[in-house]
Amino acid sequence: MRASGRAFLARLGANESGFGPSPMAVAAMSEAAGEAWMYGDSECHDLRHALAAYHGVAPANILVGEGIDGLLGNLVRLMVAPGDAVVTSDGAYPTFDYHVTGFGGVLHKVPYRDDHEDPAALLTRAEQVGAKLLYFCNPDNPMGSWHSARIVQRMIAAVPDGTLLVLDEAYVDAAPDGTAPPLVPEDPRVIRLRTFSKLYGLAGLRVGYAIGAAELIAVFDRVRNHFGVGRLVQAAALAALHDQAWLEQVRQQVQDARGRLQDIAAGHGLHALPSATNFVTMDCGRDGDFARALVAALRARDVFVRMPFVAPHDRCIRVSTGPADTLTDFDEVLGECLRALT
Amino acid sequence: MRASGRAFLARLGANESGFGPSPMAVAAMSEAAGEAWMYGDSECHDLRHALAAYHGVAPANILVGEGIDGLLGNLVRLMVAPGDAVVTSDGAYPTFDYHVTGFGGVLHKVPYRDDHEDPAALLTRAEQVGAKLLYFCNPDNPMGSWHSARIVQRMIAAVPDGTLLVLDEAYVDAAPDGTAPPLVPEDPRVIRLRTFSKLYGLAGLRVGYAIGAAELIAVFDRVRNHFGVGRLVQAAALAALHDQAWLEQVRQQVQDARGRLQDIAAGHGLHALPSATNFVTMDCGRDGDFARALVAALRARDVFVRMPFVAPHDRCIRVSTGPADTLTDFDEVLGECLRALT
Repeated sequence: MRASGRAFLARLGANESGFGPSPMAVAAMSEAAGEAWMYGDSECHDLRHALAAYHGVAPANILVGEGIDGLLGNLVRLMVAPGDAVVTSDGAYPTFDYHVTGFGGVLHKVPYRDDHEDPAALLTRAEQVGAKLLYFCNPDNPMGSWHSARIVQRMIAAVPDGTLLVLDEAYVDAAPDGTAPPLVPEDPRVIRLRTFSKLYGLAGLRVGYAIGAAELIAVFDRVRNHFGVGRLVQAAALAALHDQAWLEQVRQQVQDARGRLQDIAAGHGLHALPSATNFVTMDCGRDGDFARALVAALRARDVFVRMPFVAPHDRCIRVSTGPADTLTDFDEVLGECLRALT
Repeated sequence: MRASGRAFLARLGANESGFGPSPMAVAAMSEAAGEAWMYGDSECHDLRHALAAYHGVAPANILVGEGIDGLLGNLVRLMVAPGDAVVTSDGAYPTFDYHVTGFGGVLHKVPYRDDHEDPAALLTRAEQVGAKLLYFCNPDNPMGSWHSARIVQRMIAAVPDGTLLVLDEAYVDAAPDGTAPPLVPEDPRVIRLRTFSKLYGLAGLRVGYAIGAAELIAVFDRVRNHFGVGRLVQAAALAALHDQAWLEQVRQQVQDARGRLQDIAAGHGLHALPSATNFVTMDCGRDGDFARALVAALRARDVFVRMPFVAPHDRCIRVSTGPADTLTDFDEVLGECLRALT
């Protein structure tokens, strides 16, 4: 956006929530603005306790951090020494890979299987290489695919000794019921990551949280930036959490918009993959060069979408859900770009 | 505050700015609140360019981060391997020590000299131990003392080969002219740290910045949390920077409040140390046990102040500047507490 000097016609590239944050969160930010001279609570007491109550776990099972990115950075720092093995899927979250590389870990990447992350292959590889961490994103980014709670539960049960499963559930608020397995907070085999950046509509604040065994959560106190989650951020997240009616409404809007994006894709001869996220990944039916050209053509028309960056996923473009008028703009520009490219 | 369940009568313990942030910054936060669904710019382009213009350096010399704490964490990570030597003053910033220890560095602590950090002794020790980093805070926290720009310049010139001087200037906006040496942005021997948490009154947002050689600044891109400084934070800091009239007014208020705190101290038989910061350190003329008891007694009366934590500084209490009515409350409660303790 900065590069072109223009506002986007359709900002659908970062899986933000174009439906916006709860008006209660907006009000909380405005109210807290005048108090911005005071440091926030280094323990995020109120937010942590509210999250614990929401999830039915103890406050000691909750760690609030600077988005899932920040939490992943500290987690990798705590768990991965130089040379340690880490397993993820090829084409999964690059920021996780960035942190692993940054702390000297060795990444082992398992291919997707039919556009899904492959739990059995991930577990096998983790066992083979003695992985300290196994990253698994459910529902998945960038393909939008997902596994049921039953499969995830079996995966947790089969995590090798010495491996911690990093279950990134950034998109779980958009997924069908039965996607997130029940929380077993003291299970030492898994740490679960959630965020306010997606359906809660607070990407601009960077706040997420981890749910895990109290002993694991406590270890973060040795490395985290203790005042890293500021006062406004805590106030906004707390207000957003309390407005579950808004979240439910956004969930419905996301579902409707996914349907609309599937129709748009079909209307242009693209194949929309099923999605349990707040975006739809569209198979363009050609190679990565074609998809890259399409993304660039859209960008030149101020339509911002992204695409998976490894083959064979790079045959696709990834389009965030958003308000109806934004999707109408996308529909129109997509048609023009496709006509120009073919 | 949370522990007592009451609001503080006088919140003077964290060197926040009770004079508040610029109304322009408050307005910017309110305005940006509705846009909180969008990620902030990962490069902090506008803020970085505005800071560069303000300081007369290149944007490539500026790094925006999650407060000085966040910047210090990344700096230590980049510069300090396990076993590496790091030099600081005994009783200086504990969060710096926390990061050094966290990354396996070995701290070498030099005593203050007459309640001032001791540049000559710090340099000698850095040379002796082959320090990777030498931390120097000017003006100093927790004593409020300072060295002139001339002395700091001589210190920079004498930094041993292989040592980087970390010049923490969190409080420099409160210092007399002639405290900060001129910026020589491409000097590879020093990195300078500034913050919006003190006189700008934005502690609740956690945003600071480093000024250093472009080559050094660029290295942070390998470790920093790229979206860690959120959209509201960037908007607020930019607005605060543009309201230099507000900063100037706060500077005057801080100066007046320092004078008032010196009078209050004298009125109770305490000795206020000279200060170039937004707080005043008061020598209680007794030992650490007495000062600790005084801090606790004040806290029981909802007056929040802190104290230095190593001897001989722990004979003192540290009181932030603040609005006149807050200082009046402090004056009254201080008198009662001192009478009760003696």
